[in-house]
Amino acid sequence: MQRSGFDRLTDQVVERFGDTPDPRLREIMSSLVRHLHGFIREVGLTEAEWMQGIEFLTAVGQKCDARRQEFILLSDVLGASMQMVSVQSGNPAGCTESTVFGPFHVEGAPHYADGGDVGNGASGTACRVRGRVCGPDGEAVPGAIVDVWQSDDDGLYDVQRPELDRAQGRGVLTSGPDGGFWFRTVVPEPYPIPTDGPVGRLLQATRRSAWRPAHLHFRIRADGYRTLITHVFRRDDPHLGTDPVFGVRPSLIADWPPAADGITQLSFDFVLARVHDSGSKES
Amino acid sequence: MQRSGFDRLTDQVVERFGDTPDPRLREIMSSLVRHLHGFIREVGLTEAEWMQGIEFLTAVGQKCDARRQEFILLSDVLGASMQMVSVQSGNPAGCTESTVFGPFHVEGAPHYADGGDVGNGASGTACRVRGRVCGPDGEAVPGAIVDVWQSDDDGLYDVQRPELDRAQGRGVLTSGPDGGFWFRTVVPEPYPIPTDGPVGRLLQATRRSAWRPAHLHFRIRADGYRTLITHVFRRDDPHLGTDPVFGVRPSLIADWPPAADGITQLSFDFVLARVHDSGSKES
Repeated sequence: MQRSGFDRLTDQVVERFGDTPDPRLREIMSSLVRHLHGFIREVGLTEAEWMQGIEFLTAVGQKCDARRQEFILLSDVLGASMQMVSVQSGNPAGCTESTVFGPFHVEGAPHYADGGDVGNGASGTACRVRGRVCGPDGEAVPGAIVDVWQSDDDGLYDVQRPELDRAQGRGVLTSGPDGGFWFRTVVPEPYPIPTDGPVGRLLQATRRSAWRPAHLHFRIRADGYRTLITHVFRRDDPHLGTDPVFGVRPSLIADWPPAADGITQLSFDFVLARVHDSGSKES
Repeated sequence: MQRSGFDRLTDQVVERFGDTPDPRLREIMSSLVRHLHGFIREVGLTEAEWMQGIEFLTAVGQKCDARRQEFILLSDVLGASMQMVSVQSGNPAGCTESTVFGPFHVEGAPHYADGGDVGNGASGTACRVRGRVCGPDGEAVPGAIVDVWQSDDDGLYDVQRPELDRAQGRGVLTSGPDGGFWFRTVVPEPYPIPTDGPVGRLLQATRRSAWRPAHLHFRIRADGYRTLITHVFRRDDPHLGTDPVFGVRPSLIADWPPAADGITQLSFDFVLARVHDSGSKES
């Protein structure tokens, strides 16, 4: 087949990565170069547009600091994070689906015993969350490490409040002998992703909603099982169809009804996949 | 055709850009999303690799400042800049080919009359450069604005020397009635692109050369003609086959022989395309 000058350039760049000692890095760079060049050819990128792209990426990098990760936000709003999660998770049928990790997790959050107040002063409507961690055959998974994190009813995570000197709406629990855990907190509310940076300008220029549907984050780790990173959403949320980070999956939407005492209560079962079970890699 | 979950996610992201008022931005975002998702699927990007990518891009952004543009450097070493130049330039046969602009051009460089010393104190072997600007039928192009810039024999451009308070190896000339111009300067030497940042680490990890073959930059502008951005290389340069930014084209390689008086002299004809002539868009 006759190769055009464009293709020859792409081949030449790919070949230049041919001496990369790490075969995985070589594979990634080759694929990246082919897709990047393909994009430039497909749209016929002009020099002015290329320079706009350079300036945009530079602004994204310069917005990042210890508390703000604008490149994760960019990856999220382009659906790249969710595509990576989808390619990787591939949980067997019946296991809880994964979704995006997001930029607001913090390692080393405080531990709580069952019934503890993870909200820890966060503003919002009081609620209880009851979870059960089990395996694919319904077996209880005791001793699972359950990280939870959420925003308050101003739509802010504790790390977005520089004046705070403690974790709020963030904690770690351990599942009991029956796989269960429970804690008190506040009902999560919808919030806009940060719009004061270049990603916010992109959403504005493309008329996209910045509002994430309300959700509670979970990361659940247990020996012999695959780590689960997911959210639980609220069924009554008006933003479920326009999540800017594409994180909603129908199986992760739950009711948060009032309990007998009138307090809102979420009950959710988390089904972990075993380490060596592989899924369809689709969901 | 059955669409997989991955494709459905990609379609969903593309649809979400459907309300973008600017049709060109919509076209660019759609193509970008499809290629970005295609890359992630093709390599089966893991979460750890995704995070490495996030950290790399963040470091690239944070390396940029008023004198350093690490994203242009990244675009250059991935061949993306040259792919954009190739898609756009498409000069008709016989016209001088374009190459990458690079990160070292400065607007408003000093003007020189014919015979002026553009080197202006830059270290290196003295040389003369004689050029002629003409159109596709060989007609002289008088009054063309000729920007030239180059590194010294330490491989540094003046903007890479914070202690310098004047332009060195950088100037603007105007072509005479016969399209000709000439100036004195120093012979350009090979130099490594800056390797003290994340792009340098990428070249190191992939065992790629950082050495650009010696070259003199030109930007030539004239009414009625398309602006030409190009380099002239030295035929004796050992790095011509491994230019890290893929800027070498055979037609831009020239001899720099000694003149009758022993001084090295480059003579080069620049053939501009007319504004309304379109090329094959290949080269």
